[in-house]
Amino acid sequence: MKQFVVVLCAGGLLTGLIGYDTPASGQVAGDNAPVMLELPPGYRDWPLIAVAHEEGKLNDLRAILGNEIAIKAARAGTLPYPDGTIIARLAWDYHPLEESKEAFGNAQSFVAVTPKNGVQFMVKDARKYASTGGWGYIEFDDGKPSSKAMPSACFACHTTVKSRDFVFNRYAP
Amino acid sequence: MKQFVVVLCAGGLLTGLIGYDTPASGQVAGDNAPVMLELPPGYRDWPLIAVAHEEGKLNDLRAILGNEIAIKAARAGTLPYPDGTIIARLAWDYHPLEESKEAFGNAQSFVAVTPKNGVQFMVKDARKYASTGGWGYIEFDDGKPSSKAMPSACFACHTTVKSRDFVFNRYAP
Repeated sequence: MKQFVVVLCAGGLLTGLIGYDTPASGQVAGDNAPVMLELPPGYRDWPLIAVAHEEGKLNDLRAILGNEIAIKAARAGTLPYPDGTIIARLAWDYHPLEESKEAFGNAQSFVAVTPKNGVQFMVKDARKYASTGGWGYIEFDDGKPSSKAMPSACFACHTTVKSRDFVFNRYAP
Repeated sequence: MKQFVVVLCAGGLLTGLIGYDTPASGQVAGDNAPVMLELPPGYRDWPLIAVAHEEGKLNDLRAILGNEIAIKAARAGTLPYPDGTIIARLAWDYHPLEESKEAFGNAQSFVAVTPKNGVQFMVKDARKYASTGGWGYIEFDDGKPSSKAMPSACFACHTTVKSRDFVFNRYAP
């Protein structure tokens, strides 16, 4: 299905979210050191790459945002993504929109409410992250690097889309 | 439910999409003249206000974007929105993500594919659009103003959220 505008940032990151234990120390250790210590400034204002809805345990509405390098490459379909690309995945809990229910007579509108499942990033540096396909992976929970989503776990799932430079999402026109 | 991060741009616009007939001439006439003749330059790169999923006849995944004035007001919860605010609603058809199905063993990821239900805008000018709550409404189909979504139809539904300056959506943090 070539026309798919695939929006999920993270198969591996999803797996990490579902199945990973937090180390007893609460610290990320060794080669799992976070690729960033702070949220990228202004990331919430980055342009939108795509949107998605996740069922199952994740059960959220989500958006994929990209920095300038990312949005340019995503829009053009450039592969591999250039170094400097940063892709962000935001997700929210969702609920029926009461006002819409009034208007339509049934709950047909479901809207994002509160942040959920962390904020996840893929950072491209072909040399630095050569062992994980050229991408560094990180999740932030409450603004701080999480110990849950580790590069190796993320990468394991992202290999599913190796032919797309390990990126699940595609630009939603 | 005060915590709702309500994302739908358009109750009225939705109604317009579902129920409106195109005039025989194919032109928008009289007080239904379009508030813009062309898509606002760069609107696709505007920051994200919120995301939503619409069931029923609309059946889409959608994103609400805002120009600089809109995003600032939405983030701060400023009401009424200042003149110059432009809010955009984009929507897409969606499908299960095949690669995710492989990874999880079931279709749990649904991703935006092709544009659907037009691109809709609310434009704030308290004086110019005084008769419709200070907002002009317009839909673009294939890059051209649509004759379907007319100000009066949009406004009729947006009165449901008069207390929020006629805006359904709220900023998704």
